Amino acid sequence: MAHTPSEVAGERPVAVVGTGLVGSGWAIVFARAGLAVRLYDAQQGSTASALDNIEKQLHELHSFGLVDDVRSILSRLTLAGSLAEAVRGAAYIQESVAERVDVKRALFEELDKLCDEATVVGSSTSGIPSSRFTEGLAIASRVLVVHPVNPPYLVPVVELVPSPATSPEAIRFVDELMHSLGQSVVHVRKEIEGFVLNRLQGVLLREAMALVDDGIASCEDIDKTMRDGLGWRWSFMGPFETIDLNAPGGVRDYVTRLGALYKSIDESRTHSQSWTADLIGRVEDQRRELLPQDQLTERRAWRDRRLMAIAGRLKRESEADEKSR
Amino acid sequence: MAHTPSEVAGERPVAVVGTGLVGSGWAIVFARAGLAVRLYDAQQGSTASALDNIEKQLHELHSFGLVDDVRSILSRLTLAGSLAEAVRGAAYIQESVAERVDVKRALFEELDKLCDEATVVGSSTSGIPSSRFTEGLAIASRVLVVHPVNPPYLVPVVELVPSPATSPEAIRFVDELMHSLGQSVVHVRKEIEGFVLNRLQGVLLREAMALVDDGIASCEDIDKTMRDGLGWRWSFMGPFETIDLNAPGGVRDYVTRLGALYKSIDESRTHSQSWTADLIGRVEDQRRELLPQDQLTERRAWRDRRLMAIAGRLKRESEADEKSR
Repeated sequence: MAHTPSEVAGERPVAVVGTGLVGSGWAIVFARAGLAVRLYDAQQGSTASALDNIEKQLHELHSFGLVDDVRSILSRLTLAGSLAEAVRGAAYIQESVAERVDVKRALFEELDKLCDEATVVGSSTSGIPSSRFTEGLAIASRVLVVHPVNPPYLVPVVELVPSPATSPEAIRFVDELMHSLGQSVVHVRKEIEGFVLNRLQGVLLREAMALVDDGIASCEDIDKTMRDGLGWRWSFMGPFETIDLNAPGGVRDYVTRLGALYKSIDESRTHSQSWTADLIGRVEDQRRELLPQDQLTERRAWRDRRLMAIAGRLKRESEADEKSR
Repeated sequence: MAHTPSEVAGERPVAVVGTGLVGSGWAIVFARAGLAVRLYDAQQGSTASALDNIEKQLHELHSFGLVDDVRSILSRLTLAGSLAEAVRGAAYIQESVAERVDVKRALFEELDKLCDEATVVGSSTSGIPSSRFTEGLAIASRVLVVHPVNPPYLVPVVELVPSPATSPEAIRFVDELMHSLGQSVVHVRKEIEGFVLNRLQGVLLREAMALVDDGIASCEDIDKTMRDGLGWRWSFMGPFETIDLNAPGGVRDYVTRLGALYKSIDESRTHSQSWTADLIGRVEDQRRELLPQDQLTERRAWRDRRLMAIAGRLKRESEADEKSR
């Protein structure tokens, strides 16, 4: 039987170190699942404003039926006065400090001294392999990348990326913890630039930029191709299931039918087109024509409401599934 | 003011030539919008079974609130006994015959003789530039690719791809017709392998296959990365709007922050990895473990219901928008 988050954590608290946008998002994931969460940020004042932000987010989640009791979730959050206080006896630490190797390295040297062997650390880095900031430290065997999509309390995927030093036990612990929290766990088996998610996004952006650069299509027409076409399937099936269902006999049959087309697409783009200032300027101009600079914030709120609507639907569907069992 | 489909077509009928899966889908798009549709297929018997299939699809659409009156939609469909009968006086022909240059070329030579100058032809080809089957024909100026996603009555995107011979008037006519039908029109300004949609899908599949080949992640974990992560945003925003909203200052700011990561991802995959039989075999094995061969059909029906649910939601949202105006 699956364990609850508290059972996985052995009734111990978790710590969020670095309480910017990403850390605050993680705090919501942990606290709504019933865990005691200690927040710490080296920048004084940052945790207090994080709490304000978390409270605001929780009220918005509540209005979409995504959390029940805002007050009791908030009651599980504690501000820690020091790093030592935050991590003492913690089952798990989610590191979410600035995306710089030197900043992360300095933090992990401190954690190496402060943490006992029962604490596992996940790094929120979206691109730095953890070996670059844990190499040579005893704690390295208990550190791995746990890369969320923002915000993690809405979009469930997390990438688990061990370094060569990470122990199988640490991977297993985080896998179990993330599953118990309701996240969707992806195992990236080797350290690689951009992990899986940003690699998939990266190759797509590369082609999209090249199509604009070559005058084949506008940014908006490329966006339409995704949101009114490709993106529908990818929002509930991945690319492999998509092609598996797109030929009578499954994926091998699909490749037999369409492999030649994809090979010719592949061969038609062998050169690397760099993102020149001119190209980015044209993309920026096209976007600002569609969405003026002063409407960016409002549109971000729209996006978040759309994500909440998707999360709400999935929650209701899975609750209906539970009931019908 | 926007014109209705009948106004755009000058009260003339449209013809669907080739009544397989794609042609049948187009027939639904045209007929539900009030147009008279003539169906023709060189293979005798194909149009009759297409009608059965169309009727089944319409009943399913009706159950999702996507069409009102199945009987009156069906009443607009006519089986034509010959190609000449199908296309005589038609405003528009949607060519949906087999994906082979020789088959299409033979058809367009016939259409060249049969059609007068008031008829425009769209080809459903998913990858063949129309110049390859219209070159040297007088009709070439009135032919362009009008590439749908399957099924076009659910997924709205269509790619319009002119050949060098296509007239601006023909492009404008199809653009207006497709808009009036409620499709989402993407203009591909030059003939290019795979157009836009399959190029975007192609580069993503290429990286996904390479990640499996390199032992970085399983097919299922790559699928999760999409359906529980990236795909959420892409189902309602394209890749450009996504990155535009992902940095405080918009897309230029985003590239300043993350351009180096994407450049390093780009540089880490300079070689082309071909899809060997061994790799495809492993992908097939992984998929069959998740979804046995004998459940493919059932899962396709599930996919279609998910697509209908998305289409239904968008229809209700746009009707609510209309009302609130």
